[in-house]
Amino acid sequence: MEVHGRVEDLRAALGSRPRPVVFVPTMGALHEGHLSLVRVGRNWAGGAGTVVASIFVNPSQFAPHEDFDAYPRPLERDLEMCREAGVDLVFTPPRDVMYAPDASVRVLEERLSQGLCGRSRPHFFGGVCTVVAKLFHIVQPDAAVFGEKDFQQLAVIRRMVRDLLWPIEIIPGPIVREVDGLAMSSRNQYLDAESRRQATVLHQALGLARAAIQGGERSSVALKELMETHVRTAPLARIDYIELVDPDALTPLEMISSQVLVAMAVFFGSTRLIDNLCLRDLTA
Amino acid sequence: MEVHGRVEDLRAALGSRPRPVVFVPTMGALHEGHLSLVRVGRNWAGGAGTVVASIFVNPSQFAPHEDFDAYPRPLERDLEMCREAGVDLVFTPPRDVMYAPDASVRVLEERLSQGLCGRSRPHFFGGVCTVVAKLFHIVQPDAAVFGEKDFQQLAVIRRMVRDLLWPIEIIPGPIVREVDGLAMSSRNQYLDAESRRQATVLHQALGLARAAIQGGERSSVALKELMETHVRTAPLARIDYIELVDPDALTPLEMISSQVLVAMAVFFGSTRLIDNLCLRDLTA
Repeated sequence: MEVHGRVEDLRAALGSRPRPVVFVPTMGALHEGHLSLVRVGRNWAGGAGTVVASIFVNPSQFAPHEDFDAYPRPLERDLEMCREAGVDLVFTPPRDVMYAPDASVRVLEERLSQGLCGRSRPHFFGGVCTVVAKLFHIVQPDAAVFGEKDFQQLAVIRRMVRDLLWPIEIIPGPIVREVDGLAMSSRNQYLDAESRRQATVLHQALGLARAAIQGGERSSVALKELMETHVRTAPLARIDYIELVDPDALTPLEMISSQVLVAMAVFFGSTRLIDNLCLRDLTA
Repeated sequence: MEVHGRVEDLRAALGSRPRPVVFVPTMGALHEGHLSLVRVGRNWAGGAGTVVASIFVNPSQFAPHEDFDAYPRPLERDLEMCREAGVDLVFTPPRDVMYAPDASVRVLEERLSQGLCGRSRPHFFGGVCTVVAKLFHIVQPDAAVFGEKDFQQLAVIRRMVRDLLWPIEIIPGPIVREVDGLAMSSRNQYLDAESRRQATVLHQALGLARAAIQGGERSSVALKELMETHVRTAPLARIDYIELVDPDALTPLEMISSQVLVAMAVFFGSTRLIDNLCLRDLTA
């Protein structure tokens, strides 16, 4: 496995590697969820090809009050995990490679990024689109893998690629969970023991919603109430949002018809956790 | 010469053409200025390679009150001129190829695009960056040629390519002028005979500024006054702006030191003409 921090070095290394090139962008602090994205990418390439991962904690997707400085950066451990997962090339750019001091160009998605996490984090998706655009131009992949845990991010990236006519296939990676159901996240390590115990309410609330929808419930108000009531059984939980939206347009649904994304964000202290459930092909 | 309107067809045609690929994006209504960009591109490729031109009147760079509908679209004549100039491939996308009805992604440059033409046309550079980003993803050129008549556009595109880490070289093409000095523009054809006669004041005012600067004048106020006085000798002229800025940062200069961009926009009726003069390596 090669590790490069300079654009020219990565491009030179890529020049002698087989296509297709599959790209897995990360902010590091890797866990089993990231490794599953690497495997999804490897499978997509059919065993051949080249898998590139990037590790870069992107400043432009953090608001000033958020956890950019505190975000974990266990680089040696991350590289070891990449090696074990079969990554071929890792790109670890320093900040000034990605952002010149007088950088003045942003890529903005202005519809799908408005609701859900975009409401609580208004700078987030602009920062994500901008850094992913840069990384795509550096790596020039044939495909890139994004996890479904960040469902809205996946939708926004797909839209960016579609609207900017990028010849890159976006591959979704399923949510990977701890044994008790908590969706894996680099931010789970911020949780103290009691918050960690209570954090299972997100997954449980989604399970209740799934069961109710499969039992015929179609009212968003009723489903939200069901979920909120459950989340409130965790005294340390503070709901940021629970929403039922169309999984393509990400617009709120009053009544579910054939498909729904149930998405939620819940704070435990200053740690914000997200989770979601996407159901398609529902029958009345 | 091949002409394609669909992305897949252009990509397929490009797949069997030699690199480097040099790209000349246009809005059609071609004139000698555009053809000179084709020649600049051909020279850059060293006689080999592939020259791609696009013809697309980009709606997102026009404000509602501007001349999008009236903009000339002499497609057959444009294609004939491309053929004679030695273009290999022409891309003529219909609007819905470039903009889906629910398109929601924009590329914005937020510093160099603020002054000069960006002040009078606040949507212009966002529209230009967005459409050029799309075209770059479609054509995937090694280099692209932009005319120096649109000096600010050239600077903004360079910045976009730098900040988004695009492996594309941006090549400037010198201003091409009519025999009386008027900078060639597709919009010159909007001018009636009397406005066309008076439109030479732009070039003449730049000539006066050049002579004064070469004679030692360094004060922007004095130089602007000199130019404004000359432009006002044309009764049909209405000055939009005359500015002296640093040619890299595009920030206003009070006193010229080693380099200056003298840029101007002047209306004749509803037709807005631009011109500029860039001087570098000046000595005190």
